[in-house]
Amino acid sequence: VLESDLLVVGAGLIGTSVGLAAAAAGWQVAITDSDPRRAEVAAAMGAGTAVAGPLPAAGLAVVAVPPAEVARVALDLLGRLRDTTVTHVASVQSAPAVEVEAWAGEDVQRFVGGHPIAGREVSGPTAASADLFADRPWVVCPVAASSPAAVDAVLRLVRTCRAEPVVLPAVEHDELLARLSHAPQVVASALAATLTGLGGEAARLAGSGLRDTTRLADSDPGMWGQVAAANAAALAAALRAVAAPLADLAERLERDPVTAGAAVHDLVARGRAGRALLPGKHGRPAVPLASVQCVVPDSPGALARLFGDIADEAVNVEDLRVEHAPGQPVGFAEVAVAPRDKERLVTGLRRRGWVVTEGGDEAL
Amino acid sequence: VLESDLLVVGAGLIGTSVGLAAAAAGWQVAITDSDPRRAEVAAAMGAGTAVAGPLPAAGLAVVAVPPAEVARVALDLLGRLRDTTVTHVASVQSAPAVEVEAWAGEDVQRFVGGHPIAGREVSGPTAASADLFADRPWVVCPVAASSPAAVDAVLRLVRTCRAEPVVLPAVEHDELLARLSHAPQVVASALAATLTGLGGEAARLAGSGLRDTTRLADSDPGMWGQVAAANAAALAAALRAVAAPLADLAERLERDPVTAGAAVHDLVARGRAGRALLPGKHGRPAVPLASVQCVVPDSPGALARLFGDIADEAVNVEDLRVEHAPGQPVGFAEVAVAPRDKERLVTGLRRRGWVVTEGGDEAL
Repeated sequence: VLESDLLVVGAGLIGTSVGLAAAAAGWQVAITDSDPRRAEVAAAMGAGTAVAGPLPAAGLAVVAVPPAEVARVALDLLGRLRDTTVTHVASVQSAPAVEVEAWAGEDVQRFVGGHPIAGREVSGPTAASADLFADRPWVVCPVAASSPAAVDAVLRLVRTCRAEPVVLPAVEHDELLARLSHAPQVVASALAATLTGLGGEAARLAGSGLRDTTRLADSDPGMWGQVAAANAAALAAALRAVAAPLADLAERLERDPVTAGAAVHDLVARGRAGRALLPGKHGRPAVPLASVQCVVPDSPGALARLFGDIADEAVNVEDLRVEHAPGQPVGFAEVAVAPRDKERLVTGLRRRGWVVTEGGDEAL
Repeated sequence: VLESDLLVVGAGLIGTSVGLAAAAAGWQVAITDSDPRRAEVAAAMGAGTAVAGPLPAAGLAVVAVPPAEVARVALDLLGRLRDTTVTHVASVQSAPAVEVEAWAGEDVQRFVGGHPIAGREVSGPTAASADLFADRPWVVCPVAASSPAAVDAVLRLVRTCRAEPVVLPAVEHDELLARLSHAPQVVASALAATLTGLGGEAARLAGSGLRDTTRLADSDPGMWGQVAAANAAALAAALRAVAAPLADLAERLERDPVTAGAAVHDLVARGRAGRALLPGKHGRPAVPLASVQCVVPDSPGALARLFGDIADEAVNVEDLRVEHAPGQPVGFAEVAVAPRDKERLVTGLRRRGWVVTEGGDEAL
């Protein structure tokens, strides 16, 4: 049985990404999964050595399994690996902490909860990336009995994954995540579920706004059922905070459309204020960027030519979005640049023959 | 006073885009706005000739003003321009139709409602584009007395803008749009509004999912207050269809977390089914694409090099998203390609020295 710096239990998106990040930093990583093929895929991607059967001793073990199984797996590891600190990556903290505290005895000193705020709607080891956690917050939730050495071991992993540690009590984490993640997931699903009554022909009239608003609705039902059950009270409160004003508005709209219109105005204004609090990409505050839109022919070389021309203008692309449907003759590239570069880029691209509109300025 | 094929009243995002599309197709376009500077900007972009003062006769006039002003402006035009067909572009149809029918007398024959399903969170003439409507649905809502010639005139404009006409009764349009657009807007705002109670430090823990789910919350409060007031009954029903299951779930979560978890599982599964009904970009059915992720250094030439290499592999990029924060050393390009091209692209890019992960397959 090999010794390793890190044992990853669960070769899904998050577990494999942790393995990739730690291995890239030079750690000895072992990775295992109840499905040995997933561990092999993760190992082939560079996320460590796949192990099956008896687990190797390790300085730190990360439990990256579905939320409902976290406590059971963590307790098993704490009992079997006597010198290993055990953490996990679930988006619920209190429920597994309570269970581990109840059953681990003195081993609880080696337990520390954790939750990297990163992920995608897609899952599985092939979606993993060593950079998934870069500049993202990673909440660390010690339990009352966690030893300082155990907390340090987890913080070392967090920094190795280039994440930013945020130490919080489990209850506070769960209340925040209910608001910031669990309720938005359920709301997006509830909104998307109303479409099933309409049929595909009617849904054709949906715009891109609805597609964005319901993007989360592609998530995995099994995992979210477990998260909801494990964070029930906080999620209930967070759902009421959305549902109550909606029901109230519905009643007003039926009673008096004019004052209800004013109430919708106020709600949309409050929503803008709330949204302004959200961080930009990679967890940093939103940066105001200028947007330039450009028509792009749907041919293999067109984007290369566009970005070559942008590079020749010595303008750095901060973000971009390309839209075109397969088989359509043209698409659009929306390029976000520093506001000071916008005029130069528009002028330069037009001079080079591109059809450019300036677009609005926004934080993409 | 000039004659023109098309008179656009209101030089915002939609009005200016209509002007650009029609002018690009060779139409004589006149454009006006209560703020003459906006009309000048639109004209400078190529959306026609800016007019102030007496309005020119035109074959067709498009009223592109805030929803609450549509009926008043349409009635004014019907009275002043005796041979002009009048349409509009508001996301509410019944309320202005009822008002025009009540006050226009025989002139109502020259009135036809309309609503292009296209738009952005940004507004104003500088965000406009001649291609805003390409391949998008454009709902045309004749009133009972609309003449066939008037309907034809509007359909010609729709096709000139390269949109796909969908003829619907106004009431049906309003019910569908309440579900597909107005309720999602209010729900996104209600969700974003809950963030105001948290403060910026807590909102740091939000992930990209919440940012997408609340993107619509950046919209204009004034316009949405008007839309809500004008489509009150349909919006109320659509809001209840979201709020009621959320309130029901909140109650179950408090009563029995385990069965509530199963209910969340079912809701998320229904949401997936609903989302699968949504069209892909440009209103076409979602096309399954394969995703390839690539690390991109944050330097002016990097994207050009990447797309040059992709073009050299003779792979067509169907869609892509680039993420990096200004000042960060690397970012990611997520490139969507036809599934048959994926393996060749991954192999080719790796051979050329790019760090590539395969990503999950999804309809971007």
